[in-house]
Amino acid sequence: MSDDTVDDLMEATYRALCKHGYAELTMQDIAAETDKSKGTLHYHFDGKADLLESFLGFLLDRFEDRLETLAGETPAERLHALFDELLTASDDDAEEFRTAILEIKSQSPYNEAYRERLTEFDRTMHDRIADFVGDGIEAGQFREDVDPDETAEFLVTVFHGAQTRAAAVDRSLERTRRYVHAYIDDLRVDDSSPDGDDASAADGTADASSAAETSATAEDGSENAGGDESEGE
Amino acid sequence: MSDDTVDDLMEATYRALCKHGYAELTMQDIAAETDKSKGTLHYHFDGKADLLESFLGFLLDRFEDRLETLAGETPAERLHALFDELLTASDDDAEEFRTAILEIKSQSPYNEAYRERLTEFDRTMHDRIADFVGDGIEAGQFREDVDPDETAEFLVTVFHGAQTRAAAVDRSLERTRRYVHAYIDDLRVDDSSPDGDDASAADGTADASSAAETSATAEDGSENAGGDESEGE
Repeated sequence: MSDDTVDDLMEATYRALCKHGYAELTMQDIAAETDKSKGTLHYHFDGKADLLESFLGFLLDRFEDRLETLAGETPAERLHALFDELLTASDDDAEEFRTAILEIKSQSPYNEAYRERLTEFDRTMHDRIADFVGDGIEAGQFREDVDPDETAEFLVTVFHGAQTRAAAVDRSLERTRRYVHAYIDDLRVDDSSPDGDDASAADGTADASSAAETSATAEDGSENAGGDESEGE
Repeated sequence: MSDDTVDDLMEATYRALCKHGYAELTMQDIAAETDKSKGTLHYHFDGKADLLESFLGFLLDRFEDRLETLAGETPAERLHALFDELLTASDDDAEEFRTAILEIKSQSPYNEAYRERLTEFDRTMHDRIADFVGDGIEAGQFREDVDPDETAEFLVTVFHGAQTRAAAVDRSLERTRRYVHAYIDDLRVDDSSPDGDDASAADGTADASSAAETSATAEDGSENAGGDESEGE
């Protein structure tokens, strides 16, 4: 298959996952989103699991591309931009897609290939965050006592938690995103924030709970203005 | 059914979920774990989804019971004890059960009853954590500037993230548990920790990254001594 054909097929897989979810998804559903026959798909892939494995590889490639082109002049700004990407619902299909990815994660213990791809994704995210934090320390933006590996480990866990809660119990990504932004600001050497409206910076208490404080302040009155997020409560 | 019969059936459902996972689970699999026939099960429940809905209610009841009997004299101690419970693999079946629960979470968008039960669980966890934090502030253990709701919201997200990563990519709960303990210590009014071995307390920097610091310190050389956790890397 040409690269264009593969890309078309992966986009078709995305649409089919959003429409049908993972559990019910068939090769026919994916073929229906392309100008290819189900037979052609079966010629190139051993079945749904094989195609989905390629799809997870495609998602990782795309994620790595986006990592290269994140907005921001400094490591701290790029770290903020990364979490804007990771914790923002991107389009109308985002909710359905998030659910499909959670289904695939839940199948990971039964499917070694899924597990490997998801682990690679997890590790890529961790390593890139650790790089940003390490670069930020070197650039004098983040404090010397910040541990890049532990910070990355923690932020990846928060990312997974936000995605799981959004899919399973309709909790908005919005609150977590604000919390993470405040958390990243708290890693900084001084309390001045580039955008100048950081409540935790303003009161000079860069402690463990100030991220929660900032987030709580930003929350008031704005929770229902999110628009792109469904909120179950 | 008598309460004892229900309890027996719920324990049987637990064992069947650990053996077969959620997706493949049948009423026959559950019946096979009891002295009841499949017909008896169908007499009491409309099918697998109905039985699983009751099972989620059973889990919530059991969780609420455990919340009542948490070890600890103070709110802070009980909050630590809660996260020891939430983030410790309890027995040999824990890994399989965690996977089954993640499967059920991933089905939540397709099943309103699951969604309601899971939301109730999420809210109960959140509210109890917020109570502990609020009680801790009132008792003078936690700082006045800590926001109980935001802290609880964040800790519930971290809980979900740790569970998802443990199931999907084999990341140990251990690191998250240590991180959360250090995080709770950082909410305290002063830097003295009851167990006296808190690195973040010792160096006097109760900031956002000191939880990561403490966790990193505790991590060195002890990651492979966990025993009850599978570690994929």
